[in-house]
Amino acid sequence: MASRSRKGLRNHVGLVGLRCEGSQEKEYDDGYYMRRCVELARKAVGCTSPNPMVGCLIVKDGKIVGEGFHPKAGQPHGEVFALRDAGNVAENGTAYVSLEPCNHYGRTPPCTEALIKAKVKKVVIGMVDPNPIVASKGVDRLRDAGIDVTVGVEEELCNKLNEAYIHQMLTGKPFLTLRYSLSVDGHFSDQLGEEVAECGGYYSTLLQEYDAIILSHNSLNSSFPASKEPGANQPLKIVVAESPTFPIQIPVVNTETSKVVIFTDKEAAVEPEAAQNGIETVVLERLNLTTILEYCKRQGLCSVLLDLRGKSGGFEEILREGFEQNLVQKVVVEVLPIWGGSTEEALPVELKNLQRSLKNLTSRKSGESVLLEGYF
Amino acid sequence: MASRSRKGLRNHVGLVGLRCEGSQEKEYDDGYYMRRCVELARKAVGCTSPNPMVGCLIVKDGKIVGEGFHPKAGQPHGEVFALRDAGNVAENGTAYVSLEPCNHYGRTPPCTEALIKAKVKKVVIGMVDPNPIVASKGVDRLRDAGIDVTVGVEEELCNKLNEAYIHQMLTGKPFLTLRYSLSVDGHFSDQLGEEVAECGGYYSTLLQEYDAIILSHNSLNSSFPASKEPGANQPLKIVVAESPTFPIQIPVVNTETSKVVIFTDKEAAVEPEAAQNGIETVVLERLNLTTILEYCKRQGLCSVLLDLRGKSGGFEEILREGFEQNLVQKVVVEVLPIWGGSTEEALPVELKNLQRSLKNLTSRKSGESVLLEGYF
Repeated sequence: MASRSRKGLRNHVGLVGLRCEGSQEKEYDDGYYMRRCVELARKAVGCTSPNPMVGCLIVKDGKIVGEGFHPKAGQPHGEVFALRDAGNVAENGTAYVSLEPCNHYGRTPPCTEALIKAKVKKVVIGMVDPNPIVASKGVDRLRDAGIDVTVGVEEELCNKLNEAYIHQMLTGKPFLTLRYSLSVDGHFSDQLGEEVAECGGYYSTLLQEYDAIILSHNSLNSSFPASKEPGANQPLKIVVAESPTFPIQIPVVNTETSKVVIFTDKEAAVEPEAAQNGIETVVLERLNLTTILEYCKRQGLCSVLLDLRGKSGGFEEILREGFEQNLVQKVVVEVLPIWGGSTEEALPVELKNLQRSLKNLTSRKSGESVLLEGYF
Repeated sequence: MASRSRKGLRNHVGLVGLRCEGSQEKEYDDGYYMRRCVELARKAVGCTSPNPMVGCLIVKDGKIVGEGFHPKAGQPHGEVFALRDAGNVAENGTAYVSLEPCNHYGRTPPCTEALIKAKVKKVVIGMVDPNPIVASKGVDRLRDAGIDVTVGVEEELCNKLNEAYIHQMLTGKPFLTLRYSLSVDGHFSDQLGEEVAECGGYYSTLLQEYDAIILSHNSLNSSFPASKEPGANQPLKIVVAESPTFPIQIPVVNTETSKVVIFTDKEAAVEPEAAQNGIETVVLERLNLTTILEYCKRQGLCSVLLDLRGKSGGFEEILREGFEQNLVQKVVVEVLPIWGGSTEEALPVELKNLQRSLKNLTSRKSGESVLLEGYF
């Protein structure tokens, strides 16, 4: 897999070589190689939890001689793939890696030792690993072995790549993102815009990126949402069913490729076929977000998407808890190209005394809609 | 003025000349020159109503030899300035002009005759003029005189440049844009974000672009909003005062540089000082948007901004009329980096049966806010 992507990259390098605007003095800088590491790392998007995504390059005499990324928890880290790809040429080369190499024996041996053994002369690191069992120990080990180490190249980009992993490491809780749709005049909507759930659309991409998605039982129609990205890992679908007066219908799902769990406050709420189809049901005294997030953590899931569709359906209390307990880190809002016509409130939740500022509010287009993203 | 801007352009041309990516076969195409025409035209933003903004270039042997734009109604058109700037060199040159040259005697003689007299061999036109007294007659006249004419270069850009003028020409009504602020969770807000009203911020730019702004009397604090763009023409400020139970306070204003008019349904509503300060007050039987827009049209104003700030204040009926009568063409929404905390409705207006689709919904950043723009 590494050699195929390397071919792609070499083509790209060839094209970039044609540029003649102000890049004469230094064709490729550390930032360039680090951005390529992040690109490589993202090939495993949605597949690495509870591990981070990591990409690695080996560069020798200005040429990329090895590439790798961490494909999945339990499999080797990106450094190992890149060093394998480079072979003996790695000696005296520079390794670029988007996250600090590990220095401990986990499911795989430490990457620091692999880099030392390969005799690279320099290691350029995107950011230190917030994991307390790594946290600069990898950097120290490399320096002790006489390797030149640079830390903090394209740090913001490397940080964003693993925002969920980093949050989980620092707080012990999964990274929770709230998603909903609004009309241009600010009314909450159950709809998704056209194209956004298709391959490349923001909604399909979110489903690929997140380890789990929380859905209201009354947002379920005939099927569960699924990412359309090629080969996407589908998120765990968590259905929240609050005291419905009828047994809720769970769409038919292939439980081998798509996992579903139901959280409810009333056992009888779920139709008996669900259990027969291998769908787990968790009955709680009172539906609450903390328990759902703890469940996700136990499953090794770092990132959870709370998808606000369907009229209320148990979400009011969950949202209130999310904000009061500071469990929500990010918001993704789809603004639909629609004005007026709804009788809905702005959001199906009353949080009158809970005003929060958002950081880094950004926007981009997806289909005919505009997507807003911000952090709490 | 033309020669100063030409110097600026020549610098720019020099820089562009360094490019070496795929532009060898033709350094500057018609699109490039037309974009420069639009750039020139925009130097008079907010100053030309009821005329359109128009920019013109004269190009000879691949060099720009003349530049001009229409600075103000009653003054010469862009073609005249560009031809003057080029002098005799215009002969056998190509004229680029963002809007079809006029072929009639208005406040100035027809531009077609000036181009014919200058013996240009080709005229490239962004778009035909929707003004019925021009409407392709300029193109016909030039072709009859043996000049090679191309129409429709960067047409969308030229269209957007004069969206208000074009709308007024086609419908006989001013172009009306609705502006308001929302929090990320869809609540209407009275606030403007930080920086957006400063020079370069979207709000300051809107005030420069629009000929008039409609404000609710209860959005007025100690001063009127004013564009901070250098040398900006300030819009006419239209204050809507609906049956207040107290005489409304009008901020002190320099009526020589800043015009104010008050529309009210109750004469006594305005404090007597206003009239003494030369502020016109129009008392209507019933406040309505149609009459306000007719007033604007009589004043030669093409573009009107309906700024939704202040709690209701007569805007509910005006907005309803705006939507029911299709008087609103565009919406500009500032999304503030704030979540929750408001007790306001989504918008201070009930339009339950009036759902509209928006075309070309786009977004960009201004300060810490995100700005949405769309067309009805």
